[in-house]
Amino acid sequence: MCVVGLGLIGGSILRAATAAGREAFGYNRSVEGVQAARFDGFDATADLDAALARAAERDALIVLAVPVPALPSMLDHLRKVAPRCPLTDVTSVKGAVLDAVRKAGLLERFVGGHPMAGTAHSGWAAGDAGLFTGAPWVVSVDDHVDAGVFTQVMQLALDCRAVVVPARSDEHDTAAATISHLPHLLAEALAATAGEVPLAFALAAGSFRDGTRVAGTAPDLVRAMCEANAAQLIPVLDHTLNLLIEARNHLAAHRPVADLVEAGHAARIRYDSFSRPQIVTTVIGADGWRDELAAAGRAGGVIRSALPTLDSRR
Amino acid sequence: MCVVGLGLIGGSILRAATAAGREAFGYNRSVEGVQAARFDGFDATADLDAALARAAERDALIVLAVPVPALPSMLDHLRKVAPRCPLTDVTSVKGAVLDAVRKAGLLERFVGGHPMAGTAHSGWAAGDAGLFTGAPWVVSVDDHVDAGVFTQVMQLALDCRAVVVPARSDEHDTAAATISHLPHLLAEALAATAGEVPLAFALAAGSFRDGTRVAGTAPDLVRAMCEANAAQLIPVLDHTLNLLIEARNHLAAHRPVADLVEAGHAARIRYDSFSRPQIVTTVIGADGWRDELAAAGRAGGVIRSALPTLDSRR
Repeated sequence: MCVVGLGLIGGSILRAATAAGREAFGYNRSVEGVQAARFDGFDATADLDAALARAAERDALIVLAVPVPALPSMLDHLRKVAPRCPLTDVTSVKGAVLDAVRKAGLLERFVGGHPMAGTAHSGWAAGDAGLFTGAPWVVSVDDHVDAGVFTQVMQLALDCRAVVVPARSDEHDTAAATISHLPHLLAEALAATAGEVPLAFALAAGSFRDGTRVAGTAPDLVRAMCEANAAQLIPVLDHTLNLLIEARNHLAAHRPVADLVEAGHAARIRYDSFSRPQIVTTVIGADGWRDELAAAGRAGGVIRSALPTLDSRR
Repeated sequence: MCVVGLGLIGGSILRAATAAGREAFGYNRSVEGVQAARFDGFDATADLDAALARAAERDALIVLAVPVPALPSMLDHLRKVAPRCPLTDVTSVKGAVLDAVRKAGLLERFVGGHPMAGTAHSGWAAGDAGLFTGAPWVVSVDDHVDAGVFTQVMQLALDCRAVVVPARSDEHDTAAATISHLPHLLAEALAATAGEVPLAFALAAGSFRDGTRVAGTAPDLVRAMCEANAAQLIPVLDHTLNLLIEARNHLAAHRPVADLVEAGHAARIRYDSFSRPQIVTTVIGADGWRDELAAAGRAGGVIRSALPTLDSRR
């Protein structure tokens, strides 16, 4: 397999896949990143065409781990050098990537992915073979998805010791807006508000520290993910704003804020006891397998060990 | 000293004060709490009048650690049984308590306090002698505050290994609204929003977990502190709402959300590097000592070891 982009996520995948015994090599744009990866004993190059040609020759799975703005030109390269390779990605917004892949004519062999792991750091040096251990790794089950490519991407995620959450790209994007992009905006607003109240930092304790932790993320990253997922983020932000405005009006009228507080508490308690049942019965490639996996993922189901494929059952 | 109410905070104070070598006893309304405290080796009773009479006899510092709704009837008892005892409290809203104490005619010997520590749990069993270690403990320096009582409350906080932040009650309440009540409302709104999106819990990772942690707090506690501090909470909530609405409108117009994201990031970075200079020069009881401490606290200053009093310097 070939990892394109050796930053935090791509670099961690190269490490984890190699540790799992896979033949894995990588490309990185910056020579410094390539040198660091080689110094650590990994197979890496700064020659994109050479890396893609090598992937094409072996029909290797290509993992796109470049920033979203770099995707269109990278897909252009891919179409020319390695148009038949199975293809996945790791970006946090799946709808936009799907559109770009469709536009590049590469949809047939593409299955989007999103490992839900990260740190506030970036670059090859921040990577870690254990980054994905136990983390959800979304693998898309959109209508076009090929059973063979899905199986390969599922296997990569499992080799990286993640648990696979099957999901449609549009549903992923709404959920990601809710549990990642929205918390980032709330954290920024809370930190910015407190910045205007002098005694606030002096008194700040756990609830402020936790509530603003992700405001420490690099602003460019936060902007990139919120702006790229604006269409999904706006409705959930509006939902949150409506809840807060209603609570505000209750406070102003000396009425209780029980509605918001009880709904929030109940949801958090449900989250704390949320279980992730293992998906075991679906056969990849069987009739309706994509819808079956999307429904199971929606209900909290995860794939912890490789599902059978129709071929292997025959 | 006498701790009235042996929940998370009161129970932790009884433990910490005892560990510091103080003679400390407590009252709790529920017999179960009293039995648990006694079982753990502490001096506790469910007989309020007996506890207060014992405090009055020794002129012991009384620490009110009961929920806000229970304060008026408790102050009524105090006025009858122990009207001359130095008095403090631990509630998160200082203005409302100040009013209730004034109304009960107990202002002269009262110095409000607020240890900024807590967990999502409550009750005697959740208490911990180390709960306040390193935590800010606000001690009020309102105009009426008596130097002798201030010294006693300061010493209690230091015995509990907290750092003392001197502050006026009104300034405390605005800051507390910003760094505690506001984050609670945001956490509730985030959790409630995610509760409506089925795939959200399945994908939730660090930013959601951190952003909703305090939504696990008992709803009654959250309501009590937000509703009691509504006058201070509304303006800071409005500030946050305006920032979020502006970001929402930028997203809808395909414009960057740089203003919010950069302001939030800058504030969080300032918070991370916020230092707490030690207050060492103020003499308690000297001319203008209250204003001097309020100004120092506003600038981030904290008391880490007991300040001298005018008497001790003579």
